[in-house]
Amino acid sequence: MQFSSSLLENAVNEFAKLPGIGKKTALRLVLHLLKQDTKEVGHFSEVIARMRNEIKFCQRCFNVADGDICSICANSIRKQETICVVESIRDVIAIESTQQYNGIYHILGGIISPLDGIGPDQLNIESLISRVQKEKTEEIIFALNPNIQGDTTIYYIQKKLSAVTVNPIRITTIARGIAFGGELEYADEMTLARSLQNRLPVESYVSGR
Amino acid sequence: MQFSSSLLENAVNEFAKLPGIGKKTALRLVLHLLKQDTKEVGHFSEVIARMRNEIKFCQRCFNVADGDICSICANSIRKQETICVVESIRDVIAIESTQQYNGIYHILGGIISPLDGIGPDQLNIESLISRVQKEKTEEIIFALNPNIQGDTTIYYIQKKLSAVTVNPIRITTIARGIAFGGELEYADEMTLARSLQNRLPVESYVSGR
Repeated sequence: MQFSSSLLENAVNEFAKLPGIGKKTALRLVLHLLKQDTKEVGHFSEVIARMRNEIKFCQRCFNVADGDICSICANSIRKQETICVVESIRDVIAIESTQQYNGIYHILGGIISPLDGIGPDQLNIESLISRVQKEKTEEIIFALNPNIQGDTTIYYIQKKLSAVTVNPIRITTIARGIAFGGELEYADEMTLARSLQNRLPVESYVSGR
Repeated sequence: MQFSSSLLENAVNEFAKLPGIGKKTALRLVLHLLKQDTKEVGHFSEVIARMRNEIKFCQRCFNVADGDICSICANSIRKQETICVVESIRDVIAIESTQQYNGIYHILGGIISPLDGIGPDQLNIESLISRVQKEKTEEIIFALNPNIQGDTTIYYIQKKLSAVTVNPIRITTIARGIAFGGELEYADEMTLARSLQNRLPVESYVSGR
C-alpha cells in the first residue's frame, strides 16, 4: 500500500500492529479518525495514553484498578470469603457480565503451560496461597478454560493449598458440560462423557436456573 | 460489560466508537495495549494525535499531504496532463497499489447523492473545473464507483467541462465489466449487458494485460 503522506502511513502502521487488524482495516480506522474533529481525536489519543500510564493492578487480586485495590475487592457487599481463580482480566469481565457471582477474584495472569515456557513461578500462585493463609477464605472456585493446561494448573494449586491450609476450604471448579443451545451430536466425546459422569438431579437443575 | 477500572472502561469506549469495532473487540485491543510497554503505547497515541493535527490536504488535488502539495502532484515524473477523478483518498491508495497509473489525481470528497443531501457544491468540482482551465490537461479519467450516483456525477462534471474548455480534452471512465476471476452466471444483468456492449477486440485485450 502506497501513501502520499508519511503521517497517514505511520498512523496506519500503528493500527495494523493491533491484533486482528490488517492494513486495510487500519486504513479504514485512520480515515475515519481523519474525518473527526481534531479535539475528538486528541481525546481518543489521550484516553489511550492515560489508560496505559495510570492504570494499576489490584494488590490483592491483580485485577485492573484505578487505585491500589480494585473496586470488586473494595466492595464490602461482596462475599470476601469466596475467591474465584481466573486466568485473565477478560475472564473477570465475562463472569461479571453474568451478574451471578458475588464473591471476589484472583487473577493468575496465565496458566501453567510448559510448552509455552510458562511455569508456576511466572503466575500469581504464591500470592494466592499466602492470601488464603491470611484471609478467612471458605471456598475457592476455579474458573479456568477446560483444557489440559487448565486442569494442570488446578491440580498444581490444589496440591499447594492442601499442604498449607489448616481449616478445610471447599475447592470447586465451574461445571463442564454441553453449552446451553449446544447440540449433543456435535459435542466432543470428552465433554459428553464428563457431562454424563457429572449428571445432575433434575430437581437441582431446575432450581438452579 | 462491567469494568473494575474507569480508565479501562474509557479506553474501551473510545475504541468502540471506531467503525466495525464492537465492545468485545475494543476490549481485546485495549488489553493488548495494556500488555505493551508504556513507551510503545505512548508512541501509538502520539502518532494518532499528530496524524490528525498535522496532516494537510494537497491544495491542488485534495489528497492527504505532509505539506501544501502532495507527493504525487510534486512528482515531476508523473504525467501532469492526465487527471484521474476519484471519490476519496481510499480510491487513490487502491489505484496506486496497482502501479499501473502514472498521472495525477483529483479527489472529489464524495459523489453527488441528493438522497444523502450531497450536491455539487459540497464537492471539489469547482476546483477541478478551474484546474482544467489553468493546467494543460489532456485527459480526465473518471474512476468512480459504478452506480447511479457515480454516473450522475460524471454526467454533471462532463457538462460543466464542455461549457468551459476550449481545447478538446479526452474524457474517459474506467472500464466496467466482469471482474477478473468473476463468474458470468453470477453477474447482474446490467454489468453483463454493458460488458457485451463495450466488448473489446481480443487483440487489444491480450496486449492490454
